Amino acid sequence: MKLFIINGPNLNLIGKRETNIYGKQSFDDYFINLIKKYPDIDFGYFQTNSEGEIIDKLQSKDFSEDGIILNAGAYTHTSIAIADTIAGIKTPVIEVHISNIFRRESFRHKSFIAPFCKGCISGFGLNSYRLAVEYFLLKSK
Amino acid sequence: MKLFIINGPNLNLIGKRETNIYGKQSFDDYFINLIKKYPDIDFGYFQTNSEGEIIDKLQSKDFSEDGIILNAGAYTHTSIAIADTIAGIKTPVIEVHISNIFRRESFRHKSFIAPFCKGCISGFGLNSYRLAVEYFLLKSK
Amino acid sequence: MKLFIINGPNLNLIGKRETNIYGKQSFDDYFINLIKKYPDIDFGYFQTNSEGEIIDKLQSKDFSEDGIILNAGAYTHTSIAIADTIAGIKTPVIEVHISNIFRRESFRHKSFIAPFCKGCISGFGLNSYRLAVEYFLLKSK
Amino acid sequence: MKLFIINGPNLNLIGKRETNIYGKQSFDDYFINLIKKYPDIDFGYFQTNSEGEIIDKLQSKDFSEDGIILNAGAYTHTSIAIADTIAGIKTPVIEVHISNIFRRESFRHKSFIAPFCKGCISGFGLNSYRLAVEYFLLKSK
Amino acid sequence: MKLFIINGPNLNLIGKRETNIYGKQSFDDYFINLIKKYPDIDFGYFQTNSEGEIIDKLQSKDFSEDGIILNAGAYTHTSIAIADTIAGIKTPVIEVHISNIFRRESFRHKSFIAPFCKGCISGFGLNSYRLAVEYFLLKSK
Amino acid sequence: MKLFIINGPNLNLIGKRETNIYGKQSFDDYFINLIKKYPDIDFGYFQTNSEGEIIDKLQSKDFSEDGIILNAGAYTHTSIAIADTIAGIKTPVIEVHISNIFRRESFRHKSFIAPFCKGCISGFGLNSYRLAVEYFLLKSK
Amino acid sequence: MKLFIINGPNLNLIGKRETNIYGKQSFDDYFINLIKKYPDIDFGYFQTNSEGEIIDKLQSKDFSEDGIILNAGAYTHTSIAIADTIAGIKTPVIEVHISNIFRRESFRHKSFIAPFCKGCISGFGLNSYRLAVEYFLLKSK
Amino acid sequence: MKLFIINGPNLNLIGKRETNIYGKQSFDDYFINLIKKYPDIDFGYFQTNSEGEIIDKLQSKDFSEDGIILNAGAYTHTSIAIADTIAGIKTPVIEVHISNIFRRESFRHKSFIAPFCKGCISGFGLNSYRLAVEYFLLKSK
Amino acid sequence: MKLFIINGPNLNLIGKRETNIYGKQSFDDYFINLIKKYPDIDFGYFQTNSEGEIIDKLQSKDFSEDGIILNAGAYTHTSIAIADTIAGIKTPVIEVHISNIFRRESFRHKSFIAPFCKGCISGFGLNSYRLAVEYFLLKSK
Amino acid sequence: MKLFIINGPNLNLIGKRETNIYGKQSFDDYFINLIKKYPDIDFGYFQTNSEGEIIDKLQSKDFSEDGIILNAGAYTHTSIAIADTIAGIKTPVIEVHISNIFRRESFRHKSFIAPFCKGCISGFGLNSYRLAVEYFLLKSK
Amino acid sequence: MKLFIINGPNLNLIGKRETNIYGKQSFDDYFINLIKKYPDIDFGYFQTNSEGEIIDKLQSKDFSEDGIILNAGAYTHTSIAIADTIAGIKTPVIEVHISNIFRRESFRHKSFIAPFCKGCISGFGLNSYRLAVEYFLLKSK
Amino acid sequence: MKLFIINGPNLNLIGKRETNIYGKQSFDDYFINLIKKYPDIDFGYFQTNSEGEIIDKLQSKDFSEDGIILNAGAYTHTSIAIADTIAGIKTPVIEVHISNIFRRESFRHKSFIAPFCKGCISGFGLNSYRLAVEYFLLKSK
Repeated sequence: MKLFIINGPNLNLIGKRETNIYGKQSFDDYFINLIKKYPDIDFGYFQTNSEGEIIDKLQSKDFSEDGIILNAGAYTHTSIAIADTIAGIKTPVIEVHISNIFRRESFRHKSFIAPFCKGCISGFGLNSYRLAVEYFLLKSK
Repeated sequence: MKLFIINGPNLNLIGKRETNIYGKQSFDDYFINLIKKYPDIDFGYFQTNSEGEIIDKLQSKDFSEDGIILNAGAYTHTSIAIADTIAGIKTPVIEVHISNIFRRESFRHKSFIAPFCKGCISGFGLNSYRLAVEYFLLKSK
Repeated sequence: MKLFIINGPNLNLIGKRETNIYGKQSFDDYFINLIKKYPDIDFGYFQTNSEGEIIDKLQSKDFSEDGIILNAGAYTHTSIAIADTIAGIKTPVIEVHISNIFRRESFRHKSFIAPFCKGCISGFGLNSYRLAVEYFLLKSK
Repeated sequence: MKLFIINGPNLNLIGKRETNIYGKQSFDDYFINLIKKYPDIDFGYFQTNSEGEIIDKLQSKDFSEDGIILNAGAYTHTSIAIADTIAGIKTPVIEVHISNIFRRESFRHKSFIAPFCKGCISGFGLNSYRLAVEYFLLKSK
Repeated sequence: MKLFIINGPNLNLIGKRETNIYGKQSFDDYFINLIKKYPDIDFGYFQTNSEGEIIDKLQSKDFSEDGIILNAGAYTHTSIAIADTIAGIKTPVIEVHISNIFRRESFRHKSFIAPFCKGCISGFGLNSYRLAVEYFLLKSK
Repeated sequence: MKLFIINGPNLNLIGKRETNIYGKQSFDDYFINLIKKYPDIDFGYFQTNSEGEIIDKLQSKDFSEDGIILNAGAYTHTSIAIADTIAGIKTPVIEVHISNIFRRESFRHKSFIAPFCKGCISGFGLNSYRLAVEYFLLKSK
Repeated sequence: MKLFIINGPNLNLIGKRETNIYGKQSFDDYFINLIKKYPDIDFGYFQTNSEGEIIDKLQSKDFSEDGIILNAGAYTHTSIAIADTIAGIKTPVIEVHISNIFRRESFRHKSFIAPFCKGCISGFGLNSYRLAVEYFLLKSK
Repeated sequence: MKLFIINGPNLNLIGKRETNIYGKQSFDDYFINLIKKYPDIDFGYFQTNSEGEIIDKLQSKDFSEDGIILNAGAYTHTSIAIADTIAGIKTPVIEVHISNIFRRESFRHKSFIAPFCKGCISGFGLNSYRLAVEYFLLKSK
Repeated sequence: MKLFIINGPNLNLIGKRETNIYGKQSFDDYFINLIKKYPDIDFGYFQTNSEGEIIDKLQSKDFSEDGIILNAGAYTHTSIAIADTIAGIKTPVIEVHISNIFRRESFRHKSFIAPFCKGCISGFGLNSYRLAVEYFLLKSK
Repeated sequence: MKLFIINGPNLNLIGKRETNIYGKQSFDDYFINLIKKYPDIDFGYFQTNSEGEIIDKLQSKDFSEDGIILNAGAYTHTSIAIADTIAGIKTPVIEVHISNIFRRESFRHKSFIAPFCKGCISGFGLNSYRLAVEYFLLKSK
Repeated sequence: MKLFIINGPNLNLIGKRETNIYGKQSFDDYFINLIKKYPDIDFGYFQTNSEGEIIDKLQSKDFSEDGIILNAGAYTHTSIAIADTIAGIKTPVIEVHISNIFRRESFRHKSFIAPFCKGCISGFGLNSYRLAVEYFLLKSK
Repeated sequence: MKLFIINGPNLNLIGKRETNIYGKQSFDDYFINLIKKYPDIDFGYFQTNSEGEIIDKLQSKDFSEDGIILNAGAYTHTSIAIADTIAGIKTPVIEVHISNIFRRESFRHKSFIAPFCKGCISGFGLNSYRLAVEYFLLKSK
């Protein structure tokens, strides 16, 4: 099984700043653990601060992956363009969030991409990614 | 580990009606499978169509469980009272939804309970419950 | 033909209080007249102030009735849960109101259940119920 | 008893176009059947696509009829002028709709005329007109 | 000086119905008095229930009158088309209302035509028309 | 007949600044002309930039005047307090505006005081005051 | 004098959880003190998490009490049905809140029941109930 | 190929008034040029200020034309009735506007008819009509 | 104990006008009775129609009083400035209203000052002030 | 004549995915046909998924082209930045859309760029581009 | 150069209360330092809690100053009257705020005066005033 | 002291186009003057039309600068992603705007980044940047 993780803007800062909120583990470290936990899964990973590059990557990964795990960061709440891409590709996409976005400012309660994703997992810290992996494992059985 | 599942209004109809949407498996059958899959977890289960009884059950299960998995059904979108109960109890509560609520009518996009839950899992069919169980397993390690 | 009437909150007060608005006839008296008027119809009747019990009754009466006449009272304007039940059952449901709800406060103009009912009859006093009966008679011919 | 039916814009297309929605019976055919069903009622009928002509007809029919059955079509949702006319005349007016307007676009959920009509009947197909007739019969007894 | 008065929908009912609100004087009687009061003014008058005919009349009266006094009735609150006509013609138009529209339903507080009229006079009963006449006299001096 | 004119904030600037909009005549000069035009009327006049002083003056002038002409300036759009005063006093109050407030920013379209005034006259320049005087003359006959 | 206190959802948790907010005194303890303070008043008390049971109790207590003190908890903000009951009964109802609801989330600023209650007292902790008692004492003198 | 052009309210004023905005060419002159430019097309043309007559014409031209070019003027923004007609007829309708409606007042940004038209062309002056003709030519090839 | 009562705009009219609503007792008379009822309390009183003077008084009374009872009248609904003052001073302020503001126009349902006051008492007539006094007595014990 | 076509996000997917909606022709194929159809026009073409690159290209193409045809895709509805660029450059820009955006989700009805474009063409499939070309041809004559 | 500083409601409390937010320096002390820092500037200063007095002062200082620095406090968000004054006077006005108003309640994000001021400086503590002074210095060079 | 200036979309056009609004000085020329004016400050500068590159630059400049001056252009009003970056970095950021954004379209009145910046300076032309520099100088003393 091939799974690809795409992280959007500012998610490269995790573990480095605002550690009281996001904890002290960087996503790179977390990703290494993830690979170890699931030796049978072929993982890929990409982070960018650019809306356009998320679209480019989603398009290029279509057909080559069994599933995409997307944390679009703040673009979740503003990008119709990313939503359109998800609607246009065949590979199932799962929306994940580290924090519980419904506890935060009201402009974070709106997700443009949610209607086009398979499902949404939010609020479980970095474990949100792992639950998404578990879903793909469940589905593939 | 003790986990308690609470299902709200109309979730007793799953597998019996609108099977094109929700599939042919009833929640009772699914629950039996869940118990078998996780022999080390002590599961409890309760379904009601009454907002007040959801509150009663949440209050009575506080302190006696390690986690609560709540699918409040339509009360998700209208009940401040259930939200207050979740805020008032100590046991962590996970909000789950079978369908992707963001693909449906706009009045289903608002969740009063989300800000007070640990996290939210929606759109994965009955697997949403299982991902919630997985989270409690991950956390307990 | 079997028809079941469900009355929601405060409709047990009709004929007892606010008689200047609702008249001096209680629903119980009206119901007796209705039975006499239509000797060939097998009527059932249930009143409750509880949202959950309306849902319970709608679910239990599915398949056993030819039609349901529902005056959900104030839950008309707030209950997505009752709306979901109507959407989930097979028996046709007609929404009735004694008063013209569009002459009253703006929060009474919104009906969550209307989109899922066969049709709506409002403003004809207790005759609203009788017109609903007439519809089922017309349809059954 | 004299009853007058007024049909607003596009209701002359019924039975001719969009027959999958509105059925294959034209209103003219339906009207002939209605006359036959109620030989003791003196029916009149008028259709127009013009807002002003609905107002003209409502004004001219005041005092000469026992009741008016009005399907204002799309003007239901936009015409304060027709609402004012209904408020100004003495003859009771019943608002009818063939389709369940609450299942359709949200701009059809607002009725400017409803607060000024005796009552509203919607969603019963062409039978909506007949239920209105039944009401006038009930009232006249 | 030539002045033309245009009355919109339902203003032909004044003095005939709802006399507790609008008084017992019809506009026709009022108009005769107006002519007598101002023998030097050449008055014209037109009433219609049709939005389109108000537009037709406004267009045809442009250039031939010194001023137009318009009570567009309910079209005041819904007609962008009449507003466009006023914007397009040269003759100054004064908006008048018999009742104080700001004491009534909120949908009557919006006037589409007001921004394009010279000014607005509302709430003075039939005297609103006379104050409009006085303005044209003041201006012509 | 005794009439009192109250001018609100910034109306003391008329004729002095923004003369392209309001003309070169100050309200003081206009007021002198008004007195001359109507020798039989006993006029009073007060200008203030303070919301509280408008209320004080309205209260103190009640019973001693036959009518009050109020241009509340920007307080028209923000002051519920002035509206309450007008509702509480017996002397009829007419709302006047020099400019056509409906041609300006949308926050100027709302008048808190309009529902409690006898009527409203706007858009006729300083002649708006004179039309208000004319109304009191008409009414006194 | 007979007074009845009705407490809505989650008010049975007071003094047990979130003691930093609500203090360490349970309502049961408070109620015992209240009875002692006013030996001449015949107090009754009922708590429920169910909207329908609040309605049942309000209806059954009508005519048998001199006053009802209602803390509807979160149903304050969502229940039109409870509002209708208060409107329909004769016994005066006072709305009380322990916390200052206007300092909290905006969805708590709306009270459906307030327009139908005699008055509202909020923000005084458990003393809010006592002030309501004082009002009934003042009124009864 | 047969094409029919329908122009709504105030479009008869083009070239006569507000020539700084709409230019000095009347639609009649433009129409003559259009006929000359496309000798193989059988053109028809109708202008009215009445909403009802636009509906009448749309209904009567159905089946007899290959395409309809509609500039509904201000009714674009207010008429659900015209929208219903377009939805009900078979002949494809193209919405055109002379000016760029998105540069004007916000109430002109909403088009009730757009969802039911084949497409929309706005902002190209009288050339908007010609582009619509070009579309029908392209489609017919 | 020292308590200071501040009354805002138009509250000097109580007992003098609109006596059908507010009763025939002036606040001055009520205040004399209040002083007699509570001989141990040192009362002060101030009324003004000016927003600024309410702020001045609140600032000057800080530190010198044990409590302030504020009926800000219409400024309740419009004054952020008074709200800021209450937030800035140390003396607890109680918001009182004579009428039930939630039964009145919707613009009276919003209180800018409520979040910064200790609590709110509304709807008990002049007794609202007395209940506020009772609270300060309860608290001081 | 030199014309430049800019396509925004996801428009590179046309003809490849969702072919039931957009048809089986890719834009590249369409573009080749376009070049052949208009041999006298010097066409350029650019596609990007990045908002910033659309701005870069619009800026760089100013002065060097006679016209720009822009399908900004989803950025149409969210990008004030692209709107600012169009406002800032001299070359006329035409907004085109393949689908009828007014038939789709309401968030697609808003165009930030429309007020700054020469005009808008939507709903004609790939022919929307060709109609834009036709406009530039008409204008250049 | 002559500069005049106007401070609105509650700004006299700075340095005295809520010192954790605003610091321990009073504006009077700050003002003395400001005078010392810029010996060549002729400063004036005025503080009031009254909206009307801000207007009076702005009007009286027009023509006599080179610039006005205005911190209108809470009136920033509610006063159209002050906005009108700024629009009417010639002397440039700069809006300053001590705190970052965009971090606070949403009703503080709206400034009625901003569109009429030269510019806005907020969030720099008392240094906001000094930056305004720097602007006038820059401009005068 | 090290200060870094980041300019967002279209700010490279300043001085080149729309010179009637923004003046004839390009930012590059202005920047050279700024460097000369403050020889002790180590300035850096970056302009981009891409939202993602603004984020990249803000992240990379954290820790290496004493302050950042950000004119995010149109992204000010749409970018939650940039706001998140500012919230995540340690270096203080000042928001500047050349024009008075509150005089322009209402969609420019909303700033997503303002709550996370130290302060905001708008409306002073290119001097807005210089005032920001002055603030950092004041703070560093």
